[in-house]
Amino acid sequence: MMISPLHRYLADMIDSLRPMTAGTVNPVTETATQPDIQKFGITLTTVNGQQYSSGDADHKFAIQSIAKVFAYGLALDDLGPTQVGKKIDVEPSGDPFNEISLQRNTGRPANPMINAGAIATVGLIKGRGGVDRISRISRTMDLAADGSPGQLEINRTVFHAENIAGHRNRALAWLLRSFEIIDSDPEPVVQDYFLECSTDVTTENLSMMAATLANKGINPVTGREVFTEETTRQVLGVMMTCGMYDAAGNWMIDIGLPAKSGVDGGIMVVVPGQLGIGVYSAPLDQHGNSVRGAAAIRRVTRDLGLHYA
Amino acid sequence: MMISPLHRYLADMIDSLRPMTAGTVNPVTETATQPDIQKFGITLTTVNGQQYSSGDADHKFAIQSIAKVFAYGLALDDLGPTQVGKKIDVEPSGDPFNEISLQRNTGRPANPMINAGAIATVGLIKGRGGVDRISRISRTMDLAADGSPGQLEINRTVFHAENIAGHRNRALAWLLRSFEIIDSDPEPVVQDYFLECSTDVTTENLSMMAATLANKGINPVTGREVFTEETTRQVLGVMMTCGMYDAAGNWMIDIGLPAKSGVDGGIMVVVPGQLGIGVYSAPLDQHGNSVRGAAAIRRVTRDLGLHYA
Amino acid sequence: MMISPLHRYLADMIDSLRPMTAGTVNPVTETATQPDIQKFGITLTTVNGQQYSSGDADHKFAIQSIAKVFAYGLALDDLGPTQVGKKIDVEPSGDPFNEISLQRNTGRPANPMINAGAIATVGLIKGRGGVDRISRISRTMDLAADGSPGQLEINRTVFHAENIAGHRNRALAWLLRSFEIIDSDPEPVVQDYFLECSTDVTTENLSMMAATLANKGINPVTGREVFTEETTRQVLGVMMTCGMYDAAGNWMIDIGLPAKSGVDGGIMVVVPGQLGIGVYSAPLDQHGNSVRGAAAIRRVTRDLGLHYA
Amino acid sequence: MMISPLHRYLADMIDSLRPMTAGTVNPVTETATQPDIQKFGITLTTVNGQQYSSGDADHKFAIQSIAKVFAYGLALDDLGPTQVGKKIDVEPSGDPFNEISLQRNTGRPANPMINAGAIATVGLIKGRGGVDRISRISRTMDLAADGSPGQLEINRTVFHAENIAGHRNRALAWLLRSFEIIDSDPEPVVQDYFLECSTDVTTENLSMMAATLANKGINPVTGREVFTEETTRQVLGVMMTCGMYDAAGNWMIDIGLPAKSGVDGGIMVVVPGQLGIGVYSAPLDQHGNSVRGAAAIRRVTRDLGLHYA
Repeated sequence: MMISPLHRYLADMIDSLRPMTAGTVNPVTETATQPDIQKFGITLTTVNGQQYSSGDADHKFAIQSIAKVFAYGLALDDLGPTQVGKKIDVEPSGDPFNEISLQRNTGRPANPMINAGAIATVGLIKGRGGVDRISRISRTMDLAADGSPGQLEINRTVFHAENIAGHRNRALAWLLRSFEIIDSDPEPVVQDYFLECSTDVTTENLSMMAATLANKGINPVTGREVFTEETTRQVLGVMMTCGMYDAAGNWMIDIGLPAKSGVDGGIMVVVPGQLGIGVYSAPLDQHGNSVRGAAAIRRVTRDLGLHYA
Repeated sequence: MMISPLHRYLADMIDSLRPMTAGTVNPVTETATQPDIQKFGITLTTVNGQQYSSGDADHKFAIQSIAKVFAYGLALDDLGPTQVGKKIDVEPSGDPFNEISLQRNTGRPANPMINAGAIATVGLIKGRGGVDRISRISRTMDLAADGSPGQLEINRTVFHAENIAGHRNRALAWLLRSFEIIDSDPEPVVQDYFLECSTDVTTENLSMMAATLANKGINPVTGREVFTEETTRQVLGVMMTCGMYDAAGNWMIDIGLPAKSGVDGGIMVVVPGQLGIGVYSAPLDQHGNSVRGAAAIRRVTRDLGLHYA
Repeated sequence: MMISPLHRYLADMIDSLRPMTAGTVNPVTETATQPDIQKFGITLTTVNGQQYSSGDADHKFAIQSIAKVFAYGLALDDLGPTQVGKKIDVEPSGDPFNEISLQRNTGRPANPMINAGAIATVGLIKGRGGVDRISRISRTMDLAADGSPGQLEINRTVFHAENIAGHRNRALAWLLRSFEIIDSDPEPVVQDYFLECSTDVTTENLSMMAATLANKGINPVTGREVFTEETTRQVLGVMMTCGMYDAAGNWMIDIGLPAKSGVDGGIMVVVPGQLGIGVYSAPLDQHGNSVRGAAAIRRVTRDLGLHYA
Repeated sequence: MMISPLHRYLADMIDSLRPMTAGTVNPVTETATQPDIQKFGITLTTVNGQQYSSGDADHKFAIQSIAKVFAYGLALDDLGPTQVGKKIDVEPSGDPFNEISLQRNTGRPANPMINAGAIATVGLIKGRGGVDRISRISRTMDLAADGSPGQLEINRTVFHAENIAGHRNRALAWLLRSFEIIDSDPEPVVQDYFLECSTDVTTENLSMMAATLANKGINPVTGREVFTEETTRQVLGVMMTCGMYDAAGNWMIDIGLPAKSGVDGGIMVVVPGQLGIGVYSAPLDQHGNSVRGAAAIRRVTRDLGLHYA
């Protein structure tokens, strides 16, 4: 088997960043799964479906907040941007991910990437054709990841840990209920939110999911449309300004690409028309973004000239 | 003289959008200059320095908040991003332009595009080599606009109007002084802030200034470096997330390009590596952005396929 | 039977204020019990246990937020002011009753009279000696009301209405849980909070309860200590600054006495060392205080010279 | 001369509290006047004009925020509570003294005891009959203090120190100007605010000023009306809920009397119908209230049974 220059580049990059030891594992993750902080992997997927990996690219971890992106896409495809926009705005909030950040009087969350907005997103998605809500969300992620090795599965240990620690998210859900942003019992909504976040993925999966978004919503391997082009465009716009929490501005200057991070250590980056990137390493910076993951993304986007400007 | 297809396209676009009557002229502008709400112009400038205009592209109006972009670039070139970053963050605030939005405890403004951040920016710029602060800011704008017709000049009527209505900006300046974000008498800082905002420009000027930013900081006609490449990149990143006030997220989805609007009706848009766009029409939407101007930008970026994604 | 001058004074006062028609019935109350907006009663009880009533003094209505006072007293007697103070502060918040008003970082509610603080108070009270929490709270109110006609009973219709409309209170309870201000499942805490608020009283009951507080915690008729003198002092201090929601300052100037109002239209006022006053009329002003009730209190305190200053 | 039991009581109390060493001198005061932290004095004045002092009762210190009380009384007498209430509310804010605490949209300060409200109060007072504003404020304080030894004088050193450190107060003044709460140039308003705060007093003066308020606005020695009874009642109501900054609730429970503290170490307490108390000691607790002063007030009100309840 031939080793491409890109494979070699990625291997060198992983080697040079692996010694970074800064960051702390998310406490809930630590308790639930005691992750190996040495694990560090990256996968690039082109819009032609070609994958390039290095490091622990087949290591499973919980997708966490990155799931918000796909639930939001599903809600947009179900209801259209106007209906969704009545319940969830698309503006950066300048606040940390778990802030309340609801619009005065209406209770509309600032965007679908903060927890309040993501819980509201789940509330907008309904079961259809005998398929219940969480199955529809899972299936959306499956369709985006198709063509990458392995299967997405919900990690029950992570779910259980999120569920018992989820007081603040339940508070957000009841607050959304009080403003009629959620129109039914909030408890099943929160449960489904925890379930989507507890989905196990690899950087191979994540990178294919990103490539689907880079490819205007069409899975590069299966050719199936996961999201419409309009939905994909809106999803990417929101990731661009709201995907990296209160570090959105710094990320824009540094990286300038739509991205979304998860608290277990995954980051997904989209290079529209070109690539999807998935990267993983558990220790997080103070904004909740993977330290090695962000460094890898910074390196790759600079070296490959991927910044939008 | 031959009319290029692009000229014809712009002329048709101006004609089709001119009937839009929504929006309100900014009250301070109304009192100061009673602008003609029929005036509507656009100019595109390529990174080769070629200009394409239509409508009232030689009509003068005050640059207002668009000046913040150039003062910020000058401060970055003077002090570097680290020193500037200690005083002014680069994060979207989710607040209207005149909100206080200072970081708790430190008083650091959220970004240089809100008024507090723009006033702090002026405070960071010092006179040099016998040239005082406002002259250095004016000269920076001149260098960026060079090669477009006419001269930038400060409009004393606008300055006077801003100055007497500027209570809230003075409050912001004193607040910044109390946090040592501004380290000298705030009054001259506020004065220079009003002066930079009162600079008269045309869409021809604005478009050339945008083209300078699109061209990595180098004026496309004179070939002079106005800003370093690193400064330009940071300026564009901040425009991308913070340039359109609390409509940043919607703008990202719709347009997806670094932009900055001014309350007199100008909008400047940068298509990195390709184009600078300047557009003008006085009536504003509720976010303070020109109604016809935003519509023109939306049309042009769609028709020419300029969206980043 | 002889009519005392005080009886005649109260009868005249009721007659003269009955024509006041301003105010709106609380929507949840309206739906649950369709109260008669003509009902209007007042009772004064001296610290010797003598009662003077006029109007509909035997009309039953839900005690609502006035119950917070007695639950707070019970928590203070159970745990002492230091332990209670760690979980609930005693400072006016300047916010409406249903505001979040939790201390940054610690989540400590500003005071026990806002909903967040009252829910936290219930969470501090535990079952004792085989008597469960809500029975202990009910018994505390019974002991304070003893000697007045009738029995306090929980109104199940009101409880049901509060319970199904209680989204925001559940949100507050989960938020308190996330800050460990509540240390167990919030749902039973919220249920007991709704139960205490759904207790039916008359102004005869309320006035006796107030007289118990006016009498340093000792029921004037039975001579039983309901609260210690130290607890009573703290309860009155908190009522003084926090009892009338965001109208605390106006109430202090106007009335200058510890008071607590409930959303069904009751107001309880304490004249330390002298009197307890209970008044009822359903229509409320914009702060949630009974319009006729507040007018009656204002009249009585002026005419009888009861203002503290 | 006979030593009364009250004199002996006060002397013993001063002796027993003098060893308290907690607290920090206000930094601006420290720089301006290097106060002797051993100085500790108290004066009680009855509504008959009899004074009882102990400790350093003739030591001069700047009145600071206690002046706000008298400026507010003057504004109320000039304009009446309705006009004043349009510009300044009477509600506790739950915020520290230098917080912004302006009502959303209107910019109305929460109460006249926070700096924003006190600056707005000065703005409401105009020169009259050839007497300028600051002279009218000074004269009001003189009239209240008349009959106590010595003369009130503005301390120019303190004024200068406040003036150069007054950035935040200037910011508040410009903010008030922007909301039209202040209707003229804010700079002279802030100057007069600093001047009133820089007035030197002794506890003998302060106690007489308090006794004037305890005596319904009539100076107990001269018999002159300084404030109307209605104004005095409103002033005392506001002191009760807003006089001790964000410790208002604790003060109510502990002391339960209208009071006002100043950052140089003075506290003034009013026992309506009975006494005025002035106390001084420079070191402050974290709320900005004199440590020994508050302890002395707590002791005296308990021992003499002065708590309202």
